[in-house]
Parts: sequence; C-alpha cells; structure tokens
Amino acid sequence: MQLPERVRIVEVSPRDGLQNEVVQVSTEAKITYIDLLSRAGLPVVEITSCVPAKWVPQLADHAEVIQSISRLPHVIYPVLVPNSRGFEDALAAGASAVSVIASASEGFSKKNSNCTIAEGLERCGEIIDRALTKGLAVRGYLSCTLGCPYDGEISVEKVRQVAAQLYQLGCPEIVLSDTIGVGTPGKVQAMIEAVAETIPIEKLAVHFHDTYGQALANILSALELGVAIVDSSVAGLGGCPYARGASGNVATEDLLYMLNGLNIATGVDLGKLLDAGNYICQQLGRVSRSKVALAMSEC
Amino acid sequence: MQLPERVRIVEVSPRDGLQNEVVQVSTEAKITYIDLLSRAGLPVVEITSCVPAKWVPQLADHAEVIQSISRLPHVIYPVLVPNSRGFEDALAAGASAVSVIASASEGFSKKNSNCTIAEGLERCGEIIDRALTKGLAVRGYLSCTLGCPYDGEISVEKVRQVAAQLYQLGCPEIVLSDTIGVGTPGKVQAMIEAVAETIPIEKLAVHFHDTYGQALANILSALELGVAIVDSSVAGLGGCPYARGASGNVATEDLLYMLNGLNIATGVDLGKLLDAGNYICQQLGRVSRSKVALAMSEC
Repeated sequence: MQLPERVRIVEVSPRDGLQNEVVQVSTEAKITYIDLLSRAGLPVVEITSCVPAKWVPQLADHAEVIQSISRLPHVIYPVLVPNSRGFEDALAAGASAVSVIASASEGFSKKNSNCTIAEGLERCGEIIDRALTKGLAVRGYLSCTLGCPYDGEISVEKVRQVAAQLYQLGCPEIVLSDTIGVGTPGKVQAMIEAVAETIPIEKLAVHFHDTYGQALANILSALELGVAIVDSSVAGLGGCPYARGASGNVATEDLLYMLNGLNIATGVDLGKLLDAGNYICQQLGRVSRSKVALAMSEC
Repeated sequence: MQLPERVRIVEVSPRDGLQNEVVQVSTEAKITYIDLLSRAGLPVVEITSCVPAKWVPQLADHAEVIQSISRLPHVIYPVLVPNSRGFEDALAAGASAVSVIASASEGFSKKNSNCTIAEGLERCGEIIDRALTKGLAVRGYLSCTLGCPYDGEISVEKVRQVAAQLYQLGCPEIVLSDTIGVGTPGKVQAMIEAVAETIPIEKLAVHFHDTYGQALANILSALELGVAIVDSSVAGLGGCPYARGASGNVATEDLLYMLNGLNIATGVDLGKLLDAGNYICQQLGRVSRSKVALAMSEC
C-alpha cells in the first residue's frame, strides 16, 4: 500500500454532527466541546453553520460560538455558509474560515438548496471570491459524489465535471462527500481518479458517512490514491436527514485508530479525543457510535 | 486494486455468534436459522461446536443441530471441535466438516485451551488426520494473529511459524483470526504476506472481529493480497469474551454490501440474508449490529 505519511483530520461534529441531534446542547457546552477538540490536536474543527434558526435550531447560536471559542493559533475553524447572507453573518461574527456547499446531483441541489447545480456553483463562486479577498480559508463540499437519495446513481463524469467547476471558481479544497454513505471502495477509487484528472490530489478531501458501514474501508481506498485530508466526527455524531439508517459520519476515534495503526501522523491525541467524545455524549445523553470509544470504555 | 473475482463467505454466527449470546435460543430456532442461511446462498455455515455443555450452555444441543438441519448438497457445514472428544461427538452426530483451533499466542493458548501452542498443534494434528481419513472437510482457526488479550503484540514471524506448522499437519484451510479485533490494514497485510511465504494464498481465510471498527477495512486489505475466503457473522453477532467492547464478528450484511459494490461474486442474496438476520435478532430480542440491516430496515 502506498499511503500518505501524514493525514489532516477535519473534525466536523460541532456542525455536521450536532445539526442532526434533537437534544439542544447549550452554547457554553458547545464552546467547551470545541475547545476540547482543538486541544486534542485536531488541526481543523468545523464549528457551526450560519443558517437561519428556523432551518437548524441547534445552530441558532452560531455567532456566539464563533466569537467565544478559545482559538489556538494553528487550528482552522471553518463555518459552513450555505449562501451570501450566511457568509456575511459569519464574517461579522469574526469567522476566519468558511465552507461552501455545492452538489453533484440536480435532485439533491433542488431539495437541499432550492437551486440547480449551476446556480449553486454560482452562489459558491461569489462567496469564494469574497472570502479569498478577505483572507479567509475556504473549503468546498461537493455532496452526493457516490449517490443521491433522489437521483440514485451519480455518474463519475458528472462528479468530475462539477468538482472541476468548483475548483475553477478558486475553491482551494474540494471535499468529496458521500452524503448518504452508499459508496464502496471500488466506486470511491473510480470517482477520485476521475476528479484527480483535473484537480491535484492534495486539494481533495473525503467526507464519508457510515450509513452502510463502509466509511473506513472507503477512506482506506482514498488514502491508497494519496488523499490526505479526511473529514470525521467524534462519536460518529450526525447523520443526514436524507439518508436511511441512524449512522452519521465516520467516527474520528475509529479513523484515528486506523491511522495510528498505519503509522500515519495526525498530531491528534486519542486519549484527549476520547475525553471530548465522553463530554459531548454526556451532553446529548446518548451512547457513542465509535467502536473504539465503546471498546476502550470497558476495562 | 487487484481483487479476487469471487469470494467465499463463511458464515459463523450459529457458532461464533451464538456462543456469546446470553439469551438461550431454542434448538428449533437454531435449525430454522441455519436453514435460512444456507438458502440465502451462503456456501459455508459453521453450525455449532461440540464442547461440553458446562463450557458453552448455548451450544449444548450440538448433536441435535448437526442431525436436524436440512442440508443443501453444495453447502459445507463445519462443526468446531476443540479436542478429540469433541471430534468423536461431531462424527457420531453425522458432521461432514469440522474446524479445529490453534493459537499464535502462548498466553491465549494457555487460558483458552489449557495447553501450549505446541500441544495445541499436536491435538489439531490428530483430529486433522482422523477427519481427512474419514473424508471430512477441515478448516483450522489460528487465533490471535494480530494481537492477544494476554500477551499483547504477536510477532509476524510467530504467526508465520505456527500457521506453517498447522498447514504442514495437513490442514487444508488456515483461518487467520483477529480474535480481539485490534488489527489495522497495514498489520493485516504484513501478517498475511509473511504467512503466504509458506502457504498458498488460496488456502488462507480471514476471520476478523470488529471490536475497534476496523474489520471491513482489514478485509479489504486482505482481498487486495488475493485472500478469497472471508468469515463473517449475520447481524454482527458474537464477540469474544476476552475482547473489550461489545462488538462481534464483522457483519455479513456489511461485508456483502462491500463485495457487491466491488462486483465480487459470492452467490449470496442480500434480501434473504437480511431476512435471516431479522429472524435471529427477534429470537435474541436484540437490535442488529449490521449497519446495512439498520439502514435498510428504515424506509
């Protein structure tokens, strides 16, 4: 196996995880949690989303979260901004990094963002321009790269095309997302190989949900192609409202266990990560979905 | 990825799964379950273990199970036999295939079988001889190939050595087992490459527990080396009493989902497999640990 020597783990649980949780977590607890994550050595922590409260009540406190976390100098704290209004809110609150979102699926784009793929890309382009001008870090999600809950199969050619457009808009990092967790390793490699025809591999991240239990195997197959940026969520928090099953993102603890075993450097401390997971699971009153966390809590 | 065109799935839940379940399943339900499994297209179903009832009360009905299932002509139904006495019992009940068990770890061998590795191999050799003479199919488990709950790390050289000895005793199939699920893909490949120096790859099977969520990624890394026999357990039933955490074997449904996605033939019908999983989970009064089963049950 040819694998990268170092992987950058992007922790998405404060946004992609919490946005799907019914139990309302207090702003104070979110801030404590995010600070536990950054102090566990995670280099990137997506902290919230600037969306209207009526869409995602859990993240209504986004401005306060952006303002109140204790930022570490080398950690990047992206804020998801679904549109220009969200971008302005994030900027006003003091965000120094943002994530935008486009889709490889017309059906998903319509249902999730009420626009066509092309219109979504145009919105992204405007935000990317403004963000880069202001000196913000930017990452761009591309949803449904391995399947769509509405349109089913998405062709590799379509994914390649939309990813290339997003990259041409100046997006410095493209996050290839398996929004509903339907992918398997062969499809993952075929999709990434197609995308990598026009985008350098070091600009690509993967964001895989674990709905069908495939996420870690899919990540391994992405690492084998040289992908070195991987999204994950402590305790496997989250889940897509459009995906069947209860599963969220791949659990960061389980990802880290694999990377440690492969001698791939991450800078993340597993013990501190487990502490952060315990903290947020207590806040949510639920059991972790990380198998590593479950195994290591029973001695 | 270079992958096998066909994989033989060995279903171990009636033995390795049920032996760790506290809820006593009726003999009738076990027979119904095994028949559902064979009719789902599984080519090998390990049906029980001939152990004293005081060791494993759940499998005290082994003779009746061996005698009463409805055998399909092309399906192999191994019975685990930990010693010669168990082998005689299996033979008397009409078993046509057996599994023996050796260990790559002195500590595990002592605790689990009350003998040294060498003594365990000698026992295996006697059973293998008798079984082959009688025309039975035989597979040989090698436990703790990626770590031991007592001895910790087990060297690749030790695994290579013991596997080679088991093979030299005439064992036609060596089942490399991660008994406590601690392995990661790089270690899996290093171990298999070492073992494959002396044993043809087509004689090797893998049997991975999912304690740390690594099983499917580990299986993928084994497939990449050409391993084409994979053990798994419907609903992720089971778990080793010596392993931390609640996890059992890798779930057959999740394995099959990956193999289907990779266009690897198995002959197994996912729908029928899910039905079998629903049946046994109802008998046990518990929720499936297969993510595919969970995702596909919520429509």
